[in-house]
Amino acid sequence: MVSIKDVARDAGVSPQTVSNCINNPDIVKPATRELVAASIKRLKYTPNASARRLRMQRSNTIAIGIAPTSRSQVYDRLLHALVTEADARNIRVTLYKTDSHQDEIRQFAALSAQGDVDAFILTDTAHGDPRINWLNEHRQTFVLFGRPWGLDDMYDPSVPWVDVDGRHGIADMAQYLILHGRKHIGFIGWPGLSGTGNDRRMGWQDVMLGARMATEDELDTLSDTAEDEIFSAQIACTRLLERRPDIDAIICVSDTIATGARLALAAGSGDDGIAVSGFDDTATAESMGLNSIAQPLTESARELMRIIQERLDAGPDLQNGVDDCHVLLPPKIIIR
Amino acid sequence: MVSIKDVARDAGVSPQTVSNCINNPDIVKPATRELVAASIKRLKYTPNASARRLRMQRSNTIAIGIAPTSRSQVYDRLLHALVTEADARNIRVTLYKTDSHQDEIRQFAALSAQGDVDAFILTDTAHGDPRINWLNEHRQTFVLFGRPWGLDDMYDPSVPWVDVDGRHGIADMAQYLILHGRKHIGFIGWPGLSGTGNDRRMGWQDVMLGARMATEDELDTLSDTAEDEIFSAQIACTRLLERRPDIDAIICVSDTIATGARLALAAGSGDDGIAVSGFDDTATAESMGLNSIAQPLTESARELMRIIQERLDAGPDLQNGVDDCHVLLPPKIIIR
Repeated sequence: MVSIKDVARDAGVSPQTVSNCINNPDIVKPATRELVAASIKRLKYTPNASARRLRMQRSNTIAIGIAPTSRSQVYDRLLHALVTEADARNIRVTLYKTDSHQDEIRQFAALSAQGDVDAFILTDTAHGDPRINWLNEHRQTFVLFGRPWGLDDMYDPSVPWVDVDGRHGIADMAQYLILHGRKHIGFIGWPGLSGTGNDRRMGWQDVMLGARMATEDELDTLSDTAEDEIFSAQIACTRLLERRPDIDAIICVSDTIATGARLALAAGSGDDGIAVSGFDDTATAESMGLNSIAQPLTESARELMRIIQERLDAGPDLQNGVDDCHVLLPPKIIIR
Repeated sequence: MVSIKDVARDAGVSPQTVSNCINNPDIVKPATRELVAASIKRLKYTPNASARRLRMQRSNTIAIGIAPTSRSQVYDRLLHALVTEADARNIRVTLYKTDSHQDEIRQFAALSAQGDVDAFILTDTAHGDPRINWLNEHRQTFVLFGRPWGLDDMYDPSVPWVDVDGRHGIADMAQYLILHGRKHIGFIGWPGLSGTGNDRRMGWQDVMLGARMATEDELDTLSDTAEDEIFSAQIACTRLLERRPDIDAIICVSDTIATGARLALAAGSGDDGIAVSGFDDTATAESMGLNSIAQPLTESARELMRIIQERLDAGPDLQNGVDDCHVLLPPKIIIR
């Protein structure tokens, strides 16, 4: 690698003069500048990126957290799309390890104090997320992949996000099933208060009530919940079918739960004819022939990068004035 | 963020003096140094990472390529393990986009010319890989996840690698199946000359010949090949069964091919009792109840980081003298 010292030696000037030619050309005599420029060209000198970044006060790097083990194929796929979109904008993607929100905040502090990162992308967002407060208090640029899920902060300009409209996707699936003759459509969701989970359940509920396929009271008997793993889903599916043996389709909140449901049905009466659908269109859904819902990850990555770039260009004082920073993208139903 | 100028103002000295106190303390008077040190402490000034790196000539960053779409759950899982291992050593992981070997070499050139990256991790290695030559010619530190697969370069100290012993894993699986009463064990591999694919096939061949379960001539009728996708694997499995209806187990080179084989069998005689095994222990293998072979990715990540660190510590002139830079790790068979 050619260094600033090599250029200085070649041009017969001091390294400080070369540095001035690059960073403060005004204070260097024109003749000296030309001499140094010729040496830079001859030696093919590339100013060190760390040096250049120091001048620009921009690292051209964004950071995204990654858990110690792969929890979701969707986040892994988003990473691929994100690197492609970032590369097109000459932006680097750096990863940091995250075990918990507190751990992640420690990483924000380190990465931002060192000026290594221009912006953060947050995933796995929840209501009252402490990461959002920290980033806003420390005037860091960020965008969520997922919604903040609070009544008060959903359209707050200081909390930009890109998300996929799960409610819309599940409603599309329910409508498709009804159009194809299914009448008693069950739902298996996640337990507890998950913003994403509740939103997806609403999609099923909207269509079931709207198409008069169920009354308000019936919704409870037609639905059940399971942790996001196969065994828990098998139990939930068996329980649901015992309660409602008339069920002819089951919409699940995830492909993992759909897999468990499919396995429970296969272990039961064999060819049951019950349509099972999941969410995320994973390799498993494809292998098992499950219907699913595909998230538009390339488009999501593009919108995340667009929002980051617009906010960085506006600067810390004006970034909350940037429009169009809450983007809900429609997913696509996949029928097998 | 506190800057060097803030410290200078606070200490009543020039920014250059503050810089000298940090980078060339010898040339500053002790009294001035103490004054500046007190200001640094009072203002909680952290030297900018770009500035610090410039001095250290180390970016504390490693880079790994990532394809535009997720091709393998194994690489995605490795990424998680790698970030965890790197974090423990205070090393950053940055991603770059790669479409082809040539594209990747362009990325090497950019990342190394800018001094942004200390070392590279290469995946998807093949015999005569042009990336390896480029990195060695340009004296860059790197390590392969996968072997170079050349007779001449397998134990070349200038081509360090970490890999998982697929031959060993497949042989373990074949032995397990024979111990559990299987006699006619087929194999579905990849077509063409894949180092990894041939190595895995050798594991099956070793055991079949060693246990006298097949003659050399029989190996061809007991094996077939398929592209790494479900449909191609279904066809190969059907063809294999037509040729050898006595087959009672099929070992596949990947989980994707095992999935295709399982689907072909299910579409045939129903409960066939044929044991199907894959490779990589993906979520799909778990969902479909397939036997598989798990790669030790945490251990792989640890070895990759160890080799990089040892080579960086040795420096460019001595790094090829570092021992223990060819590591073959045993995988684990998973029986379901």
